[in-house]
Parts: sequence; C-alpha cells; structure tokens
Amino acid sequence: MTEEITPELAGLVLDAQPFSALLGARLVEFAPGRAVLEVGVREDLLQQNGFLHGGVLSYAADNALTFAGGSVLGAEVLTGGFTIEYLRPAVGRALSARAHVVESTRRRALCRCDLFMVDDDGERVVAAAQGTVALVG
Amino acid sequence: MTEEITPELAGLVLDAQPFSALLGARLVEFAPGRAVLEVGVREDLLQQNGFLHGGVLSYAADNALTFAGGSVLGAEVLTGGFTIEYLRPAVGRALSARAHVVESTRRRALCRCDLFMVDDDGERVVAAAQGTVALVG
Amino acid sequence: MTEEITPELAGLVLDAQPFSALLGARLVEFAPGRAVLEVGVREDLLQQNGFLHGGVLSYAADNALTFAGGSVLGAEVLTGGFTIEYLRPAVGRALSARAHVVESTRRRALCRCDLFMVDDDGERVVAAAQGTVALVG
Amino acid sequence: MTEEITPELAGLVLDAQPFSALLGARLVEFAPGRAVLEVGVREDLLQQNGFLHGGVLSYAADNALTFAGGSVLGAEVLTGGFTIEYLRPAVGRALSARAHVVESTRRRALCRCDLFMVDDDGERVVAAAQGTVALVG
Repeated sequence: MTEEITPELAGLVLDAQPFSALLGARLVEFAPGRAVLEVGVREDLLQQNGFLHGGVLSYAADNALTFAGGSVLGAEVLTGGFTIEYLRPAVGRALSARAHVVESTRRRALCRCDLFMVDDDGERVVAAAQGTVALVG
Repeated sequence: MTEEITPELAGLVLDAQPFSALLGARLVEFAPGRAVLEVGVREDLLQQNGFLHGGVLSYAADNALTFAGGSVLGAEVLTGGFTIEYLRPAVGRALSARAHVVESTRRRALCRCDLFMVDDDGERVVAAAQGTVALVG
Repeated sequence: MTEEITPELAGLVLDAQPFSALLGARLVEFAPGRAVLEVGVREDLLQQNGFLHGGVLSYAADNALTFAGGSVLGAEVLTGGFTIEYLRPAVGRALSARAHVVESTRRRALCRCDLFMVDDDGERVVAAAQGTVALVG
Repeated sequence: MTEEITPELAGLVLDAQPFSALLGARLVEFAPGRAVLEVGVREDLLQQNGFLHGGVLSYAADNALTFAGGSVLGAEVLTGGFTIEYLRPAVGRALSARAHVVESTRRRALCRCDLFMVDDDGERVVAAAQGTVALVG
C-alpha cells in the first residue's frame, strides 16, 4: 500500500530538492491527480534572447508531472520520461506548470502538463508536456 | 542563406544564456552535426535523493539538441520540442550531453542526444533524448 | 489564408486515404479544435495476445491529431511528430481516438489525443498521445 | 531469468500478429540489441497524396522498437510508449525500420529506430523514433 501524500509533505519534498530551491520553484497546488508548480521569472533563468530558458520549462514540466503522478501513486515514484513541445517564446512574470493525471493504474500514472506564462494582463499556454510516472521497484 | 557557426560563436551563444551560466554548462565540442555540453555536478543541482535533478538532464538535452541542430542550420533556430527518457539515477562527477544530427533538410534537423554520467571510473548512459530543431520564420 | 474545412470535406480526406480504408477508420466527429476517429476491432487488427495492435493505436493517434490540427489550420497540414504512451492492453469492441487542439498559432497547432477502448459495458483510456501539426510550406 | 529469443522465434512472434500480416511486415534482421522490420509499399498503405501513410511508419517503429527491446530482455515485454518524428514524405519501394538498443537495465531497454524509405536508386531517412521497452509484470 502506498502512503497518501499531503500537500504539506509534497511541499517538503520540493523543498528537499536543492535544484528546485536554486530555481525558486514553489508548489502552489497539490491535490489527488493534480499539481501546480510556479517559477518566478528572474534574469538568471533566461536564454540569450531574453525569454525564459527552455530548460526551465522542461524542469518545471518534469517536476510537475512527477508530483501529479505521486499524488495518486504515493511518494516512491520516478518519472520514466516525458515529451515537451514549445509553441511560443516564454515571456512574462512567472511560469505556471499545471499537471494532471490523465489515467492511472496501480503502478503507473499517465500525466500531462500545460505550461502557462503569467503576466499582469493575463496568461497563455507556451508549451505542453506528457509523461509517465511509475512506482519505484 | 544561413551563416555557418564556428565553435567560438557557439560558445559565445552559450555564454549569453544566463541560465546556462547559472548551471555552469560548458560547450566542450561543436562541429557540423554534433554538439557536446557538460555540466559539473554540484550540490545545488541535485534532487532530494542526492541524484542529479532530472531538470538538469532535460536542460542539457534541450540545449545540446539545439546546438547540434544549429550546427547544420545556422544560428537562427528554435527547438520545437523533444522527448527524454530516463534509464538510471544520475550519479557521478559530471553530466555529458552528446547530441548529433540524425538527418536534416534545409529547414529542419532531427537530432538525438545521449546523456552520460561521467565518474572517475568511467561513464554510463543514464538518459536519451530526441527532438527537432527548426529555422526560425 | 487557409480555407476552413467542413466535416464533409474532412470525411472525404479520410476516405481518400487507402490505409484508413484498409483499417476501416471513420471520422465520427469533426469540429473546430476537435476530431474523433473510430476503428472497429477486427481479427486482422490484433497482435499475438489478442489485443488491438499498438500500431493501430498509433495510426489512430497520428491521424486524429492531424485532423484536429487541420480543423484550425486548414487542409494543408502535416504532423511533425507525436508521442504515444500505452497504459493498458487494448481490449474491447472499438477504438475511439479523441483529439483536440491545446493551443495554436497561425502556423502550428499543439494537439492531444485520448485513446479509449469502447465495449458494451463502458469505455476506458488505454493510451494517450501528444503531437504538433504544422502548415505545409 | 529471461529466455533468449532466437531469430526464428522472433519471426514466429511477428507471424502471430494478424495486423503485421495485414501490412505484409517482415523481420529481416534480429540479433542481440537489434531488429529490422520491412514493409513493402502497396497502394492500400498510402495516404491521400500518394505517400506511405504515417500510420504505417508509426506501426513499424513501434514494432521494431519492441523486437529490439525483446532481443535483450526476452519475449515477455511491452513497449511503454514511443515518440516518432517525421522529416520527409515517405516515398519509395519499401520501408525499412531499423531499431537498436541504446542502453538497457535488467528490466528496461531504451531503444531507437531509424526509418528509411528504400528505392531502386538508394535510401534515405524519413523519420526517427525512440521508446522504452519493459519486462511485463
């Protein structure tokens, strides 16, 4: 049996990731089948044209998918892999990576993540991801 | 006509990415159809179990794919998206992301990237990626 | 300017695909941002264990994604690529591949497809796909 | 312990797939870490513009990846999912899907597949795929 993860425990797991701390990521929502991660835009997260670096988007997608999968499978999960497709340059005040479980079995969860750039005048999808999260062992 | 990119120019592009500087990424090889990016393992790049964070691997895959594509298409390229699959926990001294062009047309390059963890006693593949790089506009 | 595609025109395009005829695929829904393709299960579409072959699912995902993208971009589109993840063996009476546009720009549409197996007692997701459709030229 | 698969056994598995028979697929090479599947071009495998249908390419990629994974993991494997990217219209006399294992653990194999169209005057890559094959159970 897997232990249910509370939003508090999920937040502690994120805080225990030094790389997430380096990027300033926060878990702003965590519920069964759903996880939302936010990263505020900072100068040191950009690429050469002033857009948020694709690597920040792929980090956020990876992590949000994992937390969404963990919300239904428990804490002992690994992301097997994922796909991300970029649609627009990532410009705005913050990145919001919103992941949900499409469907799950006892050992695997198929998850998707929509990546929004949020600005003062609204938000828009800039990328989308899909991946599979599995129980370890 | 696209302008050919020299290794020096490619290095300058990487240096112009604040996020790559934050992660300490270096372009250790750049030739037509090939690009190798290295990231030394540091405490602040890890996840909660002491492995290199998946987001660092996906960053390196994304960027190495883009540089490999740019090596044949020119500097004005964007990565449309990519897939990464993780096979093993990423443990070692440094990450080496080795990308090459599988095939290209005038406007698109299909690229792959093997992600190795390098340690004092050798190296091993921990993940693999594939993506498409396209000319802008 | 792209020409809008009516459901009738979309149906004619599908009928003009000999491979879709071979598989008995039908376009059961077509609206702006959405396309649903159905394939009835037949003995000659199975794999060695009696499940619907993964290749039928990937065919349906590919085609449904393309029609969904075409519903917003016009008839002159190509699917650049897609990802499909399998969650369960595909058992049932028919496959229903339900694709929708997540977000689109003038030239590209980011689409997803949920693949359901439908049986007399209900339906369930067996796989999920994501891909990008682009205007030709 | 997994049982090693001989080329003869692998051929029997392919022959036991009704969908592979419908498409006329043949396993022309099978060795540890490698599998090559061929599909001759026929009128009923095309799409509306006279190219080989993307669904035939995705079928071949899926199946070749699975056989390559099975060559190192044994017969009881499933493909968890895969990505395919199309680079050019598929024109020629036959499709050759050449898959190999990039790296494997005891339970999973990370595989890639290059898809060539073969014609009387040569061959060229038209698509490329990557996926993961895993032991069942």
